[in-house]
Amino acid sequence: MEINHTNMEGDNCDPDRPAHPGIFPGGEGGQRTHQPGERRVDFPVSVVLPAGGTGERTGLQTPKQFCSFLGRPLISYTIQAFERVSWIQSIVVVVAKENMDLMTDIIQRFQHRKVRVVPGGSTRHRSICNGVLALGEQGEGEEGEKLPANRPKVVIIHDAVRPFVEEDFLYKIATAAKEQGAAGAIRPLVSTVIATTSEGFLDHSLERARYRASEMPQGFTYDVIFQAYQRCTESDFDFGTECLHLALQYCGTNAKLIEGPPTLWKVTYKRDLAAAESIIKETLSRSACIITGGSAQAVTLADALQKAAGALDMELDVIPDLMGDNCRYLLKEWNFIQVSVNRSCVSEVESMLKDLEAANRALLHPLVVILVHLSGSDELSVSGRTPEPVPIADVAAAAKLRNILLYGIQLHQSKDTERWERSVLRVAEITSALIRERGPALVGQLLQA
Amino acid sequence: MEINHTNMEGDNCDPDRPAHPGIFPGGEGGQRTHQPGERRVDFPVSVVLPAGGTGERTGLQTPKQFCSFLGRPLISYTIQAFERVSWIQSIVVVVAKENMDLMTDIIQRFQHRKVRVVPGGSTRHRSICNGVLALGEQGEGEEGEKLPANRPKVVIIHDAVRPFVEEDFLYKIATAAKEQGAAGAIRPLVSTVIATTSEGFLDHSLERARYRASEMPQGFTYDVIFQAYQRCTESDFDFGTECLHLALQYCGTNAKLIEGPPTLWKVTYKRDLAAAESIIKETLSRSACIITGGSAQAVTLADALQKAAGALDMELDVIPDLMGDNCRYLLKEWNFIQVSVNRSCVSEVESMLKDLEAANRALLHPLVVILVHLSGSDELSVSGRTPEPVPIADVAAAAKLRNILLYGIQLHQSKDTERWERSVLRVAEITSALIRERGPALVGQLLQA
Repeated sequence: MEINHTNMEGDNCDPDRPAHPGIFPGGEGGQRTHQPGERRVDFPVSVVLPAGGTGERTGLQTPKQFCSFLGRPLISYTIQAFERVSWIQSIVVVVAKENMDLMTDIIQRFQHRKVRVVPGGSTRHRSICNGVLALGEQGEGEEGEKLPANRPKVVIIHDAVRPFVEEDFLYKIATAAKEQGAAGAIRPLVSTVIATTSEGFLDHSLERARYRASEMPQGFTYDVIFQAYQRCTESDFDFGTECLHLALQYCGTNAKLIEGPPTLWKVTYKRDLAAAESIIKETLSRSACIITGGSAQAVTLADALQKAAGALDMELDVIPDLMGDNCRYLLKEWNFIQVSVNRSCVSEVESMLKDLEAANRALLHPLVVILVHLSGSDELSVSGRTPEPVPIADVAAAAKLRNILLYGIQLHQSKDTERWERSVLRVAEITSALIRERGPALVGQLLQA
Repeated sequence: MEINHTNMEGDNCDPDRPAHPGIFPGGEGGQRTHQPGERRVDFPVSVVLPAGGTGERTGLQTPKQFCSFLGRPLISYTIQAFERVSWIQSIVVVVAKENMDLMTDIIQRFQHRKVRVVPGGSTRHRSICNGVLALGEQGEGEEGEKLPANRPKVVIIHDAVRPFVEEDFLYKIATAAKEQGAAGAIRPLVSTVIATTSEGFLDHSLERARYRASEMPQGFTYDVIFQAYQRCTESDFDFGTECLHLALQYCGTNAKLIEGPPTLWKVTYKRDLAAAESIIKETLSRSACIITGGSAQAVTLADALQKAAGALDMELDVIPDLMGDNCRYLLKEWNFIQVSVNRSCVSEVESMLKDLEAANRALLHPLVVILVHLSGSDELSVSGRTPEPVPIADVAAAAKLRNILLYGIQLHQSKDTERWERSVLRVAEITSALIRERGPALVGQLLQA
């Protein structure tokens, strides 16, 4: 029976996961990687992110948009998804009054740009309306000076709890909204929809093929969404949930419906937070670079690891150091494996940590650095004495405060091929587990391979 | 800002998670824990589990009901959910012909009882119909002898990919089905449902309050579901998806609709497998027992750990050994922490592993055993020499083959209170992480606290 956990991990064409999750901030000068799906949008687009929900359905005290995984609240992941799209000019986050300070803290802490926070209303429509009105108001510069109102052509409305929206789909929504006045994401219905009698019995079931689930994002020209909110009733404000409906009823605009990818899913329940965390962890674990320091033994080990890691679904690059051109690795989505042979390599690791910090690499996600210490022969282990452990605990404790997770692995060079291969495989397995798990509890440990 | 990962873990009243996940097989003589929600059902109930899906939506090659987490395929979790309900007399699993052998292997490997496997048809309705017909057929005893047909009063139909269904809700469905002829689970709609024009524009949106999502399980008297399938058309068999609809149309039975808990959710996408794994892991990590061997130092450590673990949301019981009454711990949902002081305790651990194996404790889930080795004074560590490591690697490698994950943690007794408390906290953190993660890669490691 061939069933194992790798069945779940081994598929790269998973429709459920974002193709370009953009886990690092884009738009920073020349360092930005060009996204293959990027297209030009030649009209101003802004975003309203209603985030006033109370999270009742997750069963958590904290509203779900403020729940954290890997040390960062969900809403920051969603903001990042928009921030990395070059043609989006601003993002208005609408939160409940009591969460204004919290939201401002999050924006500062994770250095979000292009974002304004405005207070929400008592219902979803009132909150979105506040966001739309804020987009039409005068802005304020960094020095507090008034900026001219920069009303966008198109407003995209999204949920704070759908963190995996991608540029390609935003492009489709924005351009369709500009052409048609309104556009919205749809998905096939997962369950049959049924009408109930007032006594709780089945009345009839709907023909599934004729209906769709209305999802987010949706896009509107500023004029359509502004007019819709000007004209709608108090009852719409209080009980309505569907912006597309307001556009149809009050502006006569039939929205263009566009089938979205499964990545548009909404974090609704506590289990969804675990699912979101697993997607982010998997994304962060796709690649690592091994730094050999140029030693021949280290290069041999690195090459063997590269082979073993291929089977574990991870891309490994082998480089001698992080100098010159190789310093580009500091800026990309890599984890780091420093190999040392017969001597403690702690100073190299410390210098790497400084470089990573300078590159602001651990701002949005904890970063994994693994020191693999290879001792020269197997005589030591045959004699029964363990080699002196490499003292990484203190360095690791300090790095952890800066969101860098440092672990150590020790192995012995062996002339016994079978034994050596077993050790290498264990290094690969441990490395892969540490990088995937990204857990803080084992930081500073020196594991044996 | 008070945001951290514990926000996600710290809530016990999560509506999303099963209250009694029944992670151990029930019904075994006197050892069965009485479930608080258990009620008496005095008529025969059987289950049909259609499991013929191809898993297209997960993006995986393996159909999702056969995808594994923690070493066991999803469908086995679902079967277990029914198996532990004493009043369910049999379960028919309907799988595609090409998966009959795989399914039979799963049933043998995880020692499922009350289960028959029958081949599916080309559509969902044809598969369910095969299952219903199989329930009306003569059975076969263990020796291959023919048993009289034991047609149930009520048939519950469920999905193989909804593993968290609970006894309480099954009770509601079974009794309502007996009274009304048919009953089905419903849930509020998560998204607005909209009708589209043929050109892909919004036609109208449905009034959300009037509609519900039809979910599983559903229940029918045998007569109603049998008749419904006898009378329905080829077109129903080919294109229909809703059993409640057939009962209404062909038997005039208006199903009773019962709002189900969020735990009824369906594993649809790859992310849902991660969510299901996280729920199971959390459930398995709620409790551990510390075995002190009676040593005063070990008891002090255990008491300190108990305090620290409370903050980590884990229940810890402290016992001197697993003798006499305490052998009940071997049968319950516990993880094990063996404390040793100043001497290797490997033989005690080996004997515990034998007991656990005899109790079949690692059949359905990997079991965690942690050896915490306390060395008597901090002089050793002050002198810079590490104490001789406890040789658990070989024992751990052997245990892993039997689905038991053995890890070691070393710490030094210290008279410096602050240092001692830091060590205890680290033991608690590492223990908690190892128990929650349940990862095989770090088995046999000796971690330092």
